[in-house]
Amino acid sequence: MAKRVLILPGDGIGPEVMAQVRRLLDRIGGFSIDEGLVGGAAYDAHGTPLHDDTLAEALKADAVLLGAVGGPKWDTLPFADKPERGLLRLRKDMDLFANLRPALVFDALAGASTLKTDLVRGLDIMIVRELTGGVYFGEPRGIEALPNGERRGVNTQVYTTSEIVRVARVAFELARKRDRRVCSVEKANVMESGLLWREEVQTLHDADYADVALSHMYADNCAMQLVRQPKQFDVIVTDNLFGDLLSDCAAMLTGSLGMLPSASLGAEDADGRRKALYEPVHGSAPDIAGRDKANPMACILSASMMLRYSFDRTAEADLIDRACQEVLNAGIRTGDIVEPGMTPVGTVAMGDAVLAA
Amino acid sequence: MAKRVLILPGDGIGPEVMAQVRRLLDRIGGFSIDEGLVGGAAYDAHGTPLHDDTLAEALKADAVLLGAVGGPKWDTLPFADKPERGLLRLRKDMDLFANLRPALVFDALAGASTLKTDLVRGLDIMIVRELTGGVYFGEPRGIEALPNGERRGVNTQVYTTSEIVRVARVAFELARKRDRRVCSVEKANVMESGLLWREEVQTLHDADYADVALSHMYADNCAMQLVRQPKQFDVIVTDNLFGDLLSDCAAMLTGSLGMLPSASLGAEDADGRRKALYEPVHGSAPDIAGRDKANPMACILSASMMLRYSFDRTAEADLIDRACQEVLNAGIRTGDIVEPGMTPVGTVAMGDAVLAA
Ligand SMILES: CC(C)[C@H](C(=O)O)[C@@H](O)C(=O)O
Ligand SMILES: CC(C)[C@H](C(=O)O)[C@@H](O)C(=O)O
Repeated sequence: MAKRVLILPGDGIGPEVMAQVRRLLDRIGGFSIDEGLVGGAAYDAHGTPLHDDTLAEALKADAVLLGAVGGPKWDTLPFADKPERGLLRLRKDMDLFANLRPALVFDALAGASTLKTDLVRGLDIMIVRELTGGVYFGEPRGIEALPNGERRGVNTQVYTTSEIVRVARVAFELARKRDRRVCSVEKANVMESGLLWREEVQTLHDADYADVALSHMYADNCAMQLVRQPKQFDVIVTDNLFGDLLSDCAAMLTGSLGMLPSASLGAEDADGRRKALYEPVHGSAPDIAGRDKANPMACILSASMMLRYSFDRTAEADLIDRACQEVLNAGIRTGDIVEPGMTPVGTVAMGDAVLAA
Repeated sequence: MAKRVLILPGDGIGPEVMAQVRRLLDRIGGFSIDEGLVGGAAYDAHGTPLHDDTLAEALKADAVLLGAVGGPKWDTLPFADKPERGLLRLRKDMDLFANLRPALVFDALAGASTLKTDLVRGLDIMIVRELTGGVYFGEPRGIEALPNGERRGVNTQVYTTSEIVRVARVAFELARKRDRRVCSVEKANVMESGLLWREEVQTLHDADYADVALSHMYADNCAMQLVRQPKQFDVIVTDNLFGDLLSDCAAMLTGSLGMLPSASLGAEDADGRRKALYEPVHGSAPDIAGRDKANPMACILSASMMLRYSFDRTAEADLIDRACQEVLNAGIRTGDIVEPGMTPVGTVAMGDAVLAA
């Protein structure tokens, strides 16, 4: 039976990179594809960054593919209407608690990093970021007026045992398929929620994953170590907010943000299926939107992650990954990763090249 | 009248780097110096990481110089007894709300960065981190047992108008003496406290600092931009937690953590004096402690910041900064910054060299 995929192109370059993915999925076949709106595009159409009907579609789909959300056009909207709220609601209501963000350096692009090439060649970090808890969703939150005429802004960082354990389990399981090393990151020296995080991760490790090497690191030190010696890491597991910063920092180490996919996964149900959303790490890049300049590879590789994690179509996923490698090796490059002597192409031509490969 | 300086060497390499500073201050003269305990050293002596008497001394001093706190010996202490709590209590009870962390690349050390040299040569960022608010001190906080047998960890991110305005003012004032550019960093797209931060900084700017260029950036993007193109920044102002990560990331970009000082400042009183604590950015480095290996320069340059910011002794501060430059240019290096063909020295010999210069 055809798998139901919901495509949410979103804003900025989202639609044009997604168009290339769509061509690829049509070629591969076996999907029943619907499209919907999210972010600023949804706000413009429905006055909300995620319509209830779209959420319902997402909950029924076997997987969701998302482009990117946001842009200056919607920057002045009230907090609850911002494009980002659409994405955050999707994550929360689909219960996608584990965000997998690989920071991978492609051999052909090792020189693209701002770091010295030796330090990043062969880099392969997997960041597992908690995605439905912490300060992103904690209550109480808001801005209140104080009697003295000032205002006060509040957010709450909160984690429970089970929230920590389920995301740590994903990290340990992934580590078993990689180099069997997990580094858990928090500020246990300053925040009690971080101390709980550390203790629960350690307890889970000792009970179920003693075969994986576990270390703990403070988030500030992790930000340093990523810059100092990124190859020391295998799997990093951390909370929603630290994960936001650290995964972006790690992504930038690769020098090619336009290449990085991500997966956001929910819990396995009785049939071993899990809700999942796949999206490129890059943003909506409004400055180059609609000009056939965006690199569709991150979005294409997100589709490949979907084939791998949601549909067990490993052969096709490998095929796509190899096709991307080949295209890079052939020197076919969008503007973000082009180097002297290579063939500069636009978004559509890059899609052509991957399809051909 | 002699200025009262309280020296708190702390743990690990703290005492040995501070010994070199002490020699320097004795040479310069004009200080009445006391020493006290903080961190693990204070815990070992008094069962608390900061004794009330030491806090009282700090409050009376014209400036405090601190080495570093922490180490594995005290890692298993309960939260309230950890070495870090001593430092945090000092910051809070002295009301040192503005933490100035320069990320500066010394010409002689541009090659030490893990980033490509062109990207960091001449780098000069000033990070102004809020230091007495946010999630570091917000209530409620703690770990509670839930009825279902789980636990729940909570911390609270909270900022008021006046907390934001006073630290932003420091950033704008500093920018006026530099390149007149301030980048304010938060997650206003996700956190209401960040939205308040953005609005208050903008309002202050428009009212009092329209001559300074103000931009706003999300914290995850800032982590990226620091790695991508660090020289785009002049002054960065941000909250306590983001400042912790971003200043460490920026510090590591320089490749020479052992060179970076910091200042933590309170409000000006009626006489134009402000409480102040100066400390190197590096930690206590327990692995090399007591072995004459640590680089005392960050601590020496912290003393120079003290002369400059607390005592208006600009000439002496310049003298120290120049002496450090000269020593570097002469190829005299501790282990952390040594390169082939240079003269490797220990902590004491480095102190000798700076004194001689
Ligand atoms: C768009 C924004 C809400 C989001 C986040 O902060 O999680 C983004 O930065 C990300 O990392 O996916
Ligand atoms: C030691 C620790 C409490 C401290 C902090 O988190 O502020 C340190 O990392 C720093 O940046 O000064």
